[in-house]
Amino acid sequence: MPNWVDGHPAESLSIKDRGLAYGDGLFETIAVRAGRPPLLEYHMARLAEGCQRLGIPLDLQLMRTELLAFSAGLGEGVAKLMITRGEGLRGYAPPPVALPRRILQSSPFPVYPQVNGVEGVQLFPCVTRLAEQPLLAGLKHLNRLEQVLARNEWQGSEFAEGLMRDQSGRVIEGVFSNLFIVHEGALITADLSRCGVAGVMRAALLDSARAQGLKVEVRDIPFEDFLQADEVFLCNSLFGVWPVRSVTGHHWPVGPLTRKLQAIARDLLDI
Amino acid sequence: MPNWVDGHPAESLSIKDRGLAYGDGLFETIAVRAGRPPLLEYHMARLAEGCQRLGIPLDLQLMRTELLAFSAGLGEGVAKLMITRGEGLRGYAPPPVALPRRILQSSPFPVYPQVNGVEGVQLFPCVTRLAEQPLLAGLKHLNRLEQVLARNEWQGSEFAEGLMRDQSGRVIEGVFSNLFIVHEGALITADLSRCGVAGVMRAALLDSARAQGLKVEVRDIPFEDFLQADEVFLCNSLFGVWPVRSVTGHHWPVGPLTRKLQAIARDLLDI
Repeated sequence: MPNWVDGHPAESLSIKDRGLAYGDGLFETIAVRAGRPPLLEYHMARLAEGCQRLGIPLDLQLMRTELLAFSAGLGEGVAKLMITRGEGLRGYAPPPVALPRRILQSSPFPVYPQVNGVEGVQLFPCVTRLAEQPLLAGLKHLNRLEQVLARNEWQGSEFAEGLMRDQSGRVIEGVFSNLFIVHEGALITADLSRCGVAGVMRAALLDSARAQGLKVEVRDIPFEDFLQADEVFLCNSLFGVWPVRSVTGHHWPVGPLTRKLQAIARDLLDI
Repeated sequence: MPNWVDGHPAESLSIKDRGLAYGDGLFETIAVRAGRPPLLEYHMARLAEGCQRLGIPLDLQLMRTELLAFSAGLGEGVAKLMITRGEGLRGYAPPPVALPRRILQSSPFPVYPQVNGVEGVQLFPCVTRLAEQPLLAGLKHLNRLEQVLARNEWQGSEFAEGLMRDQSGRVIEGVFSNLFIVHEGALITADLSRCGVAGVMRAALLDSARAQGLKVEVRDIPFEDFLQADEVFLCNSLFGVWPVRSVTGHHWPVGPLTRKLQAIARDLLDI
């Protein structure tokens, strides 16, 4: 399957790249169906925000054109896009004129157990807590050691995802997905202004839910609210929506709002 | 100047490397004088601790041999060592059998203004605050976006370094150095169990100071203690010790303990 660096087939990158040295960059994990990324506008919007906040002068029009060409060639699968600030001098200071690098990698669409979507998943309660850094919160940047540590806390297939909380114990997200709870008919997802990754499926579901007149809240989720939720589900841009059925002995039913959002996600992803 | 990947001359790395994808690795910035790294044992000890805490199965004996050979070839300069967890499958989960990658890059010894060491430096008060993550605190890992943001807050040569505080405002370190204060004859440096990078020069100075019977404290440094300090200085493994003479209108004299530690650092670095 093809991989590109700056628009050309390539498998390697300079060891001087700041993406490697400092994680100085961003990424997007992009579902590609029938030669197109169905969530293109959401990915481009997040990338634009990330580049703006990190001060990376990416040519967004070129990036869009390149991603579309890559997706057309890929057909079906996952396009992983990484943007770095490019090469730099020694030291943390960004170069006066940065030449951002665009890396596109392809992989087959992952095969998840069907039961995850039908009956729901069990969450592993990760000990790794998310640090609070408002300047980086929400971004899908390349500094992901917390997720590596958290994902390494469990092995095997009993747990499909892990629950991540912040240093104060609030419920934030999964290791590779966002989390929603349902309480008295309202759809609630964590405020990500201190930590967490603002996923594109989360954004798309929030938009769709609002458009359908559902009550939506983006706010802090204390652990007690999570335990007392009527429904809990996860989402990301590859698997859509998975109901959550349990964590450490606590159980939730798979409820009607979860099923409604699951159908919306399927429509969005064309699966 | 030479660069090596896994012991062989190389300038590039696979785009599938987890160092790029997640910053899943560690680094060391190593002064090399007359073909040898004077702080070798401190670098190897920190690398060992980092690998142990991140679960990276690095062959430390091989690493030491390789670093010594690289240093001998380099003669005078800086050896930047990066260790990554190597290539992986898609997703955060570390591969069951990781093959860590060893990257060595050389650069000339940096030339700092002599006045920095003689008269001291002015600190830029960084707005970027360090997030608190005990699981990663102290490590020199590859997730360094906070330092990139902080270093980008000032340009030009008026400020030689920036002051970094934690989310609660405590004084932690410089952007690329550690910080000490002197109070009533005691040498005090920040406790780095919640955030910060535990520099090798900091460790070497702490050892030397203790060996000479100086009073040493590793503890939290409230901003008020910093402002009321008798002396303030910075250290790292390239420049040794720089006195701090001011930050935002507050001034310190260059005192006798700073000069004492500066001489120790010069001896350690052979400069």
